[in-house]
Amino acid sequence: MLKKKNEYVVAVVGATGAVGSEMIATLERRNFPVGKLRLFASERSEGKELEFHGKAVKVEVLKEDVFAGIDIALFSAGGERSKTFAPHAARAGCVVIDNSAQWRMDPEVPLVVPEVNPHDLKWHKGIIANPNCSTIQMVVVLKPLHDAAKIKRVVVTTFQSVSGTGMKAMEELATQTAEVLNMKPVTLKVYPHQIAFNCLPQIDVFLPNGYTKEEMKMINETTKIMGDDTIRVTATTVRVPVFRCHSESLNIETEKEIAPNEVREVLAGAPGIVVFDAPEKSVYPLAIDVAGKDDTYVGRIRKDESIDCGINMWIVADNLLKGAALNAVQIAEKLVEMA
Amino acid sequence: MLKKKNEYVVAVVGATGAVGSEMIATLERRNFPVGKLRLFASERSEGKELEFHGKAVKVEVLKEDVFAGIDIALFSAGGERSKTFAPHAARAGCVVIDNSAQWRMDPEVPLVVPEVNPHDLKWHKGIIANPNCSTIQMVVVLKPLHDAAKIKRVVVTTFQSVSGTGMKAMEELATQTAEVLNMKPVTLKVYPHQIAFNCLPQIDVFLPNGYTKEEMKMINETTKIMGDDTIRVTATTVRVPVFRCHSESLNIETEKEIAPNEVREVLAGAPGIVVFDAPEKSVYPLAIDVAGKDDTYVGRIRKDESIDCGINMWIVADNLLKGAALNAVQIAEKLVEMA
Repeated sequence: MLKKKNEYVVAVVGATGAVGSEMIATLERRNFPVGKLRLFASERSEGKELEFHGKAVKVEVLKEDVFAGIDIALFSAGGERSKTFAPHAARAGCVVIDNSAQWRMDPEVPLVVPEVNPHDLKWHKGIIANPNCSTIQMVVVLKPLHDAAKIKRVVVTTFQSVSGTGMKAMEELATQTAEVLNMKPVTLKVYPHQIAFNCLPQIDVFLPNGYTKEEMKMINETTKIMGDDTIRVTATTVRVPVFRCHSESLNIETEKEIAPNEVREVLAGAPGIVVFDAPEKSVYPLAIDVAGKDDTYVGRIRKDESIDCGINMWIVADNLLKGAALNAVQIAEKLVEMA
Repeated sequence: MLKKKNEYVVAVVGATGAVGSEMIATLERRNFPVGKLRLFASERSEGKELEFHGKAVKVEVLKEDVFAGIDIALFSAGGERSKTFAPHAARAGCVVIDNSAQWRMDPEVPLVVPEVNPHDLKWHKGIIANPNCSTIQMVVVLKPLHDAAKIKRVVVTTFQSVSGTGMKAMEELATQTAEVLNMKPVTLKVYPHQIAFNCLPQIDVFLPNGYTKEEMKMINETTKIMGDDTIRVTATTVRVPVFRCHSESLNIETEKEIAPNEVREVLAGAPGIVVFDAPEKSVYPLAIDVAGKDDTYVGRIRKDESIDCGINMWIVADNLLKGAALNAVQIAEKLVEMA
């Protein structure tokens, strides 16, 4: 458990990555009580300096014995590094908030979205898992609807930006796009197929059941976070040529009928959500508009007439913020509040 | 009804548009028995020459009295022009195959996808409607599944390319993309929002129920083409920064349980479909690969575990070909066959 302090020693592991950079910026922007910030990355980035509140912070090499004296470590350095280093950090008394998939489904590790299940922070044993980006924005919206009308089933199709894969994927989209516009052959490095001007129905690797890992994350993590395994979810996750923000088409079946206007009311009153829904004025959430925003934006709310109690909607959130860095920092803020 | 002839006088109305050009190319490529080809467009294109089987054909201005002697007219010049000119053509004894939305839901007009409901061609009264692009590729896939396992409900989310809007939208995507890469302000002409590196959950205008016209087309046209209004459909249609081909995420609930392998078998044996489904090798349909192809490609076939009898899949077709020009020419071919 985190001890109450005025200021904390905070570490960002994977500090030079797409999510790591946002973690540093988010700690600064939200004035998290950081006494000392320590930044870790692989040897490649050793000696690099990153700015925090106007001061340069040196990037250190991640090692097993670096965690003494660190109160909170935000990990975003991939599953393998989390697997190796998070237990060392936890044993050194540090609370790890881990952005990888490594610990998410571990029954000993809480999987937390502060708007949804902050109570699960009470039973952590040194490691807290930050859910998958596409899951986080979905459960932020599902939770108040579940409380209002009990969700039976969700059919979700995602439109996920390349920043979810990391900085190299963002470069790949830019490079390939220029190549296509200049009628040059396209260079493939990160994705198995061209992402420029194309949609790839594959995110992460395939499992024997024909689903991708990303799709199964949306299914399994949702019930764990919501604490209700009666909610049925099926998912199709798709990578689209967008730099930042994930959009999701949600089809939701509820137990109790709930009209679109009630949905708007419930969501407008829920934390972390902006209802952005005036189609007659072409007002609906868009990836390019939501980039850099903390909230999950919801629009295109309408009745699904194909079933008795159905609602369709379109939700967009910044996958690097609410989908990753912001949610991790919000978990840290909750821990401080509860300390 | 079309009279049996060795060769037909065929007109393409809207010959200079994105679909019109494909109609001409498709008539040529499939060796449709064209005795004489006549091309019509607005005054802007008068005198322009287009090539057909190596010969130049002059574009004429569309007028009410031009249809005498024309056997078949393929219209793709927008709903207003179809409304005005198709009845004149029909009265002149010409069979109109109309690509606009103008006549599709008219109970006096058959709405035809040759793989699905060729029998509806028997009762036409001079006008036959070509369905909406996103509907066509969906019903090609739904029909054999409906025959095999009876479809109860479909939840569809689309990823539609800009060519569905026309040539100006293709230019807009290219222009905006270059503007973004060069960090210049983005020029909006065709779409209400930036389409480059973005996804727009709006195709066509909004209706009072919160759905777009495009979404309601997918719902209403499907039951008309399938000839079964027990099939429930709900749709979310989205424009993506892709030049050509529409991709669709389909969630299908059937009456009878059907395993993914049976689905593959049924679809592989159905006309107009290519099963392209080997995820372990990253083989699934992609917009950039299906461009220029006649068939609807199906992949990512897997069981939806959230209901008893559910299947998810990902389908891609060329919206200018099967979604428009090819389906129109296939209707003409069927008419010739039936004459």
